[in-house]
Amino acid sequence: MQVQIRPRGSLVQLSQLEVERLQESAASDLYQLYRNCSLAVLASGAHTDDTTQLFSMFSEFKIRILRRERGIKLELTNPPPQAFVDGQIIRGIQEHLFAVLRDILYIGDRLDALRHLNLTNSYHITNLVFETLRNAKALPAEAAPDMVVCWGGHSISRAEYQYTREVGYELGLRELNICTGCGPGAMEGPMKGAAIAHAKQRIKDGRFVGLTEPSIIAAEPPNQIVNELVILPDIEKRLEAFVRLGHAIVIFPGGAGTMEELLYLIGILLHRDNGDQPMPLILTGPRESASYFEEIDRFIVSTLGEEAQQLYRIIIDNPEEVAKHLKQQMPVVQQHRRLMGDSYTYNWSLKIEPEFQLPFIPDHEAMANLNLVPQKNAALLAADLRRAFSGIVAGNVKPEGMAQIRSSGPFQLYGDPNIMKKMDKLLAAFVGQGRMKLDGEYTPCYEIHNVRQSSAH
Amino acid sequence: MQVQIRPRGSLVQLSQLEVERLQESAASDLYQLYRNCSLAVLASGAHTDDTTQLFSMFSEFKIRILRRERGIKLELTNPPPQAFVDGQIIRGIQEHLFAVLRDILYIGDRLDALRHLNLTNSYHITNLVFETLRNAKALPAEAAPDMVVCWGGHSISRAEYQYTREVGYELGLRELNICTGCGPGAMEGPMKGAAIAHAKQRIKDGRFVGLTEPSIIAAEPPNQIVNELVILPDIEKRLEAFVRLGHAIVIFPGGAGTMEELLYLIGILLHRDNGDQPMPLILTGPRESASYFEEIDRFIVSTLGEEAQQLYRIIIDNPEEVAKHLKQQMPVVQQHRRLMGDSYTYNWSLKIEPEFQLPFIPDHEAMANLNLVPQKNAALLAADLRRAFSGIVAGNVKPEGMAQIRSSGPFQLYGDPNIMKKMDKLLAAFVGQGRMKLDGEYTPCYEIHNVRQSSAH
Amino acid sequence: MQVQIRPRGSLVQLSQLEVERLQESAASDLYQLYRNCSLAVLASGAHTDDTTQLFSMFSEFKIRILRRERGIKLELTNPPPQAFVDGQIIRGIQEHLFAVLRDILYIGDRLDALRHLNLTNSYHITNLVFETLRNAKALPAEAAPDMVVCWGGHSISRAEYQYTREVGYELGLRELNICTGCGPGAMEGPMKGAAIAHAKQRIKDGRFVGLTEPSIIAAEPPNQIVNELVILPDIEKRLEAFVRLGHAIVIFPGGAGTMEELLYLIGILLHRDNGDQPMPLILTGPRESASYFEEIDRFIVSTLGEEAQQLYRIIIDNPEEVAKHLKQQMPVVQQHRRLMGDSYTYNWSLKIEPEFQLPFIPDHEAMANLNLVPQKNAALLAADLRRAFSGIVAGNVKPEGMAQIRSSGPFQLYGDPNIMKKMDKLLAAFVGQGRMKLDGEYTPCYEIHNVRQSSAH
Amino acid sequence: MQVQIRPRGSLVQLSQLEVERLQESAASDLYQLYRNCSLAVLASGAHTDDTTQLFSMFSEFKIRILRRERGIKLELTNPPPQAFVDGQIIRGIQEHLFAVLRDILYIGDRLDALRHLNLTNSYHITNLVFETLRNAKALPAEAAPDMVVCWGGHSISRAEYQYTREVGYELGLRELNICTGCGPGAMEGPMKGAAIAHAKQRIKDGRFVGLTEPSIIAAEPPNQIVNELVILPDIEKRLEAFVRLGHAIVIFPGGAGTMEELLYLIGILLHRDNGDQPMPLILTGPRESASYFEEIDRFIVSTLGEEAQQLYRIIIDNPEEVAKHLKQQMPVVQQHRRLMGDSYTYNWSLKIEPEFQLPFIPDHEAMANLNLVPQKNAALLAADLRRAFSGIVAGNVKPEGMAQIRSSGPFQLYGDPNIMKKMDKLLAAFVGQGRMKLDGEYTPCYEIHNVRQSSAH
Repeated sequence: MQVQIRPRGSLVQLSQLEVERLQESAASDLYQLYRNCSLAVLASGAHTDDTTQLFSMFSEFKIRILRRERGIKLELTNPPPQAFVDGQIIRGIQEHLFAVLRDILYIGDRLDALRHLNLTNSYHITNLVFETLRNAKALPAEAAPDMVVCWGGHSISRAEYQYTREVGYELGLRELNICTGCGPGAMEGPMKGAAIAHAKQRIKDGRFVGLTEPSIIAAEPPNQIVNELVILPDIEKRLEAFVRLGHAIVIFPGGAGTMEELLYLIGILLHRDNGDQPMPLILTGPRESASYFEEIDRFIVSTLGEEAQQLYRIIIDNPEEVAKHLKQQMPVVQQHRRLMGDSYTYNWSLKIEPEFQLPFIPDHEAMANLNLVPQKNAALLAADLRRAFSGIVAGNVKPEGMAQIRSSGPFQLYGDPNIMKKMDKLLAAFVGQGRMKLDGEYTPCYEIHNVRQSSAH
Repeated sequence: MQVQIRPRGSLVQLSQLEVERLQESAASDLYQLYRNCSLAVLASGAHTDDTTQLFSMFSEFKIRILRRERGIKLELTNPPPQAFVDGQIIRGIQEHLFAVLRDILYIGDRLDALRHLNLTNSYHITNLVFETLRNAKALPAEAAPDMVVCWGGHSISRAEYQYTREVGYELGLRELNICTGCGPGAMEGPMKGAAIAHAKQRIKDGRFVGLTEPSIIAAEPPNQIVNELVILPDIEKRLEAFVRLGHAIVIFPGGAGTMEELLYLIGILLHRDNGDQPMPLILTGPRESASYFEEIDRFIVSTLGEEAQQLYRIIIDNPEEVAKHLKQQMPVVQQHRRLMGDSYTYNWSLKIEPEFQLPFIPDHEAMANLNLVPQKNAALLAADLRRAFSGIVAGNVKPEGMAQIRSSGPFQLYGDPNIMKKMDKLLAAFVGQGRMKLDGEYTPCYEIHNVRQSSAH
Repeated sequence: MQVQIRPRGSLVQLSQLEVERLQESAASDLYQLYRNCSLAVLASGAHTDDTTQLFSMFSEFKIRILRRERGIKLELTNPPPQAFVDGQIIRGIQEHLFAVLRDILYIGDRLDALRHLNLTNSYHITNLVFETLRNAKALPAEAAPDMVVCWGGHSISRAEYQYTREVGYELGLRELNICTGCGPGAMEGPMKGAAIAHAKQRIKDGRFVGLTEPSIIAAEPPNQIVNELVILPDIEKRLEAFVRLGHAIVIFPGGAGTMEELLYLIGILLHRDNGDQPMPLILTGPRESASYFEEIDRFIVSTLGEEAQQLYRIIIDNPEEVAKHLKQQMPVVQQHRRLMGDSYTYNWSLKIEPEFQLPFIPDHEAMANLNLVPQKNAALLAADLRRAFSGIVAGNVKPEGMAQIRSSGPFQLYGDPNIMKKMDKLLAAFVGQGRMKLDGEYTPCYEIHNVRQSSAH
Repeated sequence: MQVQIRPRGSLVQLSQLEVERLQESAASDLYQLYRNCSLAVLASGAHTDDTTQLFSMFSEFKIRILRRERGIKLELTNPPPQAFVDGQIIRGIQEHLFAVLRDILYIGDRLDALRHLNLTNSYHITNLVFETLRNAKALPAEAAPDMVVCWGGHSISRAEYQYTREVGYELGLRELNICTGCGPGAMEGPMKGAAIAHAKQRIKDGRFVGLTEPSIIAAEPPNQIVNELVILPDIEKRLEAFVRLGHAIVIFPGGAGTMEELLYLIGILLHRDNGDQPMPLILTGPRESASYFEEIDRFIVSTLGEEAQQLYRIIIDNPEEVAKHLKQQMPVVQQHRRLMGDSYTYNWSLKIEPEFQLPFIPDHEAMANLNLVPQKNAALLAADLRRAFSGIVAGNVKPEGMAQIRSSGPFQLYGDPNIMKKMDKLLAAFVGQGRMKLDGEYTPCYEIHNVRQSSAH
């Protein structure tokens, strides 16, 4: 089966050079990346987070760029059928396909151009994230603070899913926009709720921003309500995009990925330069999720201290309260940005240390070397805890991570006994609640050792 | 409590004469009508179909038109609080308020102007319906056939409601628009489903048309997804608007009102001049509603014959099939209109006889005089059956009807024993399934006598 | 030759009744009016003000409304070729054709509906003018005061024409809009100039309002820059539309029609109730027109007194000064409207007495009976002077007026010797300067007698 | 005097890195270029082509980028007053300011990024021109062929100017768009004419593309009707942009720059690979310019031969014929592109040899070394003749060229006696007709020697 797809949304005209770079060929370093991200987007209706399975199911899929009189078209060979209704591609997916094209080209081009730059330089990284978002038109000049980042699991219970819809509905009624990590579950629910509320409020240009990166997109393909899809080069730049783009953050129940996000944010907010940053942060869920948040709360306070605990507020079973509170905080955020002369759409003044910016490549050695012990500067522990959870996400759903686990067994994590015990308990709870994986039985990709690594060896 | 509301959507500039006509005063014949319709729209979130209760709850509500530099504003005194989010009116309701203003003025003006015309003239009635819809901008010139009228009850089960959403979703995925009678239940579900599908298909100008009339609007206030609200002068013109505006019709489970609509449509389609009219008509519901439709099917075939039965198709538990079928029929409708030189947005060529156009005022005498006996021309029986169900709706939820029942007891219906028995059975089923009323116990507003009226006296 | 024209701008969907009213037939009272206005619009490129000649040249022209699937089309038989470029109708003209259709139907409909009303009632007239403008969408709610009415002759010198362009350019640079009487000369120049300035200022929705009426439209057909064409029922309602719509008025050199407009405005502004109305009024022209305005100034002061002279300001050869002054006055107008609670787009509070509202039908008797003598209330003299000039315009270029002159000779005007002498001198100057007629030699359609009529008989 | 200017049209959000690159500082290599181009744009109303004088007049002018909550603003210190109306910047100029910002940043960025690429590679140059135009949004995907490039002098007679307006008017009536070199005279006239025609045709998105480059922008600042201003890196890339963007070319009377453009185009079209390229080329002017075109025609045929003469058509005094002809050619162009699978908006398939792409830096040596002798491949002579006229333009109006002439006297041109005599005659005619310079007496910046250079030394 072969279909041709017209452009929609982004990048209609490509130069001959650009088309060449994305042609399937030995010479094209970008083609495989491009093809896989496109496949992920097309398969977005499939209910699976098993990337390997997805890729093997559609191993015959190909994508080719055709140059035409009015710009380009995409030729798809053997695409996933769920992207089509009565033979027509769903337009949300069509837009996503061209967003992929835009971002893969941009990443390729910028990284090329920046190769001579020091990309370990914090300043350049922050500028690159900005430029990637701007190139995706995700930084509208007219906007006042209104972007709520919603984090949470892709694998959650029906009641939790319904609750995320209700929170989204209340946020949407208050004319707030939604930004998530693109996938199903808590990443989709708030958008659906807000879409209905926006219809009632006659908001036609509501923003549903989805931020992703090449290694996660297949496991968490963008739901089709996402109308601004942006692919960042890696997980750390994606996290930076979240916190510089968002004006408030809501955390719903989730698994390891959600913990990674929470620890990332707490680690940053603990920095003394960020002391006056208004960054409303709410942990919320339905009645039945109350104990889940108590668990997390205990973990945070016992590992990172009470200062960390002050950074968030837990609200149980009250969507209206969540939305009201965030809506009221928006003028505070706006006022702060105005005073700082900072942009409403990109928080330049938030300080992010290199330990939160530099890519962490989780392999057995890197995981084993994490320094999971109490530290004077709690932010440093937060950074390593973040990396630990990031590695677990990779081992669970990212192709490279899964391959490593298959070949070398579970990651080994060492650290302060007290911390490790708590971490073990938390992870066990996630497993028990089915938050690690969508379907099937879950085999942990990690083993936790209640000793410092040095003692272990 | 007093708030001022800016215009939205319609009619911003009023003449001094128009403002005067709607001022609260002894001289203003239109004010009370205008005030009540406005109240109905504002109370749309309230879960009740008890108009009397609604009106008594907000007896202190007032509305006043203010002339301002940029047009008019509305001043509301003691409006229902559910119309507001954090003190701001929901914009869907704001639009509806101005649609009410527009239509009440138009109805007042046209009826005035037409007083010297013979409004029993079928031709003039059809023109008036057209002009009312055009004045409401509900006849876009660019549109091709895509409007699906969804009929069904305001009081339906959770599973039925969910099913109407799914059908709406499948219709919306296929870029079809929705027209309903404005209220909750089966009138809201398809719109919610289609709104989500439209978001996925990036349709920003999806049409959610709500057709109502002054005596029903309070019992079935427009849900806020409706983005084209039109108030027709009476129930017969509203029914005519449905069938001339719609390109296909879906009937979900419902009560007496739904039966009225079905009988109206069958009565018209039985006319020989309409023999070649393509008017796709589908009765559909979830698995659990199968017996409901069997009941109705039996009633139709036994009273109106097999020819009537040929006019519709029953599809159980298959939203995709419903949507696919209707989508496929659209080119057939389009082709027929083109051949007839008829408008895509208003079906001028559909023949409607005066017995379906002239207002039926249900009172005890009129109800008792209905001729519910087998007739050569089945359309005539359909017309009187339609009137019977119309009277029952009035007795159930319309203020004037309810007042009559309170003062003089139930309506008395007479007719052919065979027909009356079937009708009794059908109505009893509706009562048993809770389709007559939203809350509380239902006391029938009718009594059925298995004899012809002449024999009864 | 026969072409079909699709709708553009206005009124796409007509009811069957409306189509019938405009079909060519003995029964259709409106068809002839409709056909002639349409012809005038189509012939707008023709350089002539000789209506009779125009109509005889295109005596074979016919127009017919066709009903089609997406609304109506117009079928033109033997239309003037200048309306087309390479066989395609110029879109400005296409819009005007549908504006004619809209307004002729509206006038027909409203006048019908109002027949039972007392249309000698000032209040109803003012409301009718409002509703006609609103129906033509000429009362945008968002607008702040920015509409400059430009009056002046259709037959002016090249230097005067160039000057009107420059004034228009300076007005347009200051984001002001233009309203004129639709024709060539001083009615076109300001629009052309403003169109260029709007392009430089990136104003895409600049308003070029043309107000006309059936008896003048053929002599002064709308230039194609006019993007809001409105046909009022008669000259008095057109004049009322000008002064209620405009926020400032510029008078360029012109002939009898321009004098009619000036006298109309002065007559109204002399009313004591209008004492606080800010209505900036500037008489302006190039260096070479200085004496023209001196002449008029002398005429006004000597007939209507110094109070009248205070109402306007004469600016010679300074387009920038004209525009700057008017721009500065806009906030004054806005402030006054806000204080009065009056609309920004329609000046309800301007008082207009019946002598300026009721139609004046110029025939020999009416002209001879004008009371052109000094009066305590100068407004009354202004009203009759206005009528005198109005009659001369009719005798010069309007079909009915020209027919009367042909059959019964020139109109006879009587009055106070002093006034009549000045009027004679002024008119002689107009004739000498070629302001009465576009081409050919001018034969006066009037005779002036320096005696009161009573003495003359 | 200091004002702040909000963004309009392009690039609202800058990264911190970008802002830094354009800050006035020793480190910023781009600042001076940016500042001068901005000044040129602001001074666009000034009637001068004397860049040196302009720059000295506004030597105190500064521009600074400010970062604000909603994006950037520009702070101008001592800007030319003609950019403002009553203290407000003209919006056309405001747009141009941000186009300058966009393109200077892009040029800086791309040239940086491409520094490691071989920019003498024809393929890369063509891609760079494409990307520069796309970045400026000058390659709309929906467009069908409709872009007419108008070349001609900035210093032309009143009658010639009026003629260019009329041609523009006729082009605009036929819905064609205009692309010129941005300056006054023949570069402005067609746009003014087309703007009026577009108003009559209700075209709101008419395209007025201005292509310029840093060294000419001050001498030929963009007129304010230009609504797509693009700054290419140098004259050769600007010429390439013209011929790949345009679908037809009109040449009005002009001076050395116009000859450069004509020779460039003829040189390219003489390439055998371009033999089937439909590229309508018309030389046109009013009656009085007939001899001018005869002169040029003779020059072309005698130097480049009859094959070159076949490439253009001369039309005298007939704007309608020019426009009609070009309009008729558009489907031919469209058909050819479709057959070639080439883009409608960028002519990739036009073959341009390196001698027309590589930058020519005119200095005394380069000019003296031009090989102005008959050649087998006429295109090679065309290339060197093009360079000769390019050098004369530089010596006339470009800052660097003028500086060279001031310091080292006129350029010396050598060549075949026959060719040089004809060139001398042609240039003398340009001088005599005042086409070299806007004001003041013209002192030639060249001396022509009727000998080959080798013989001269």
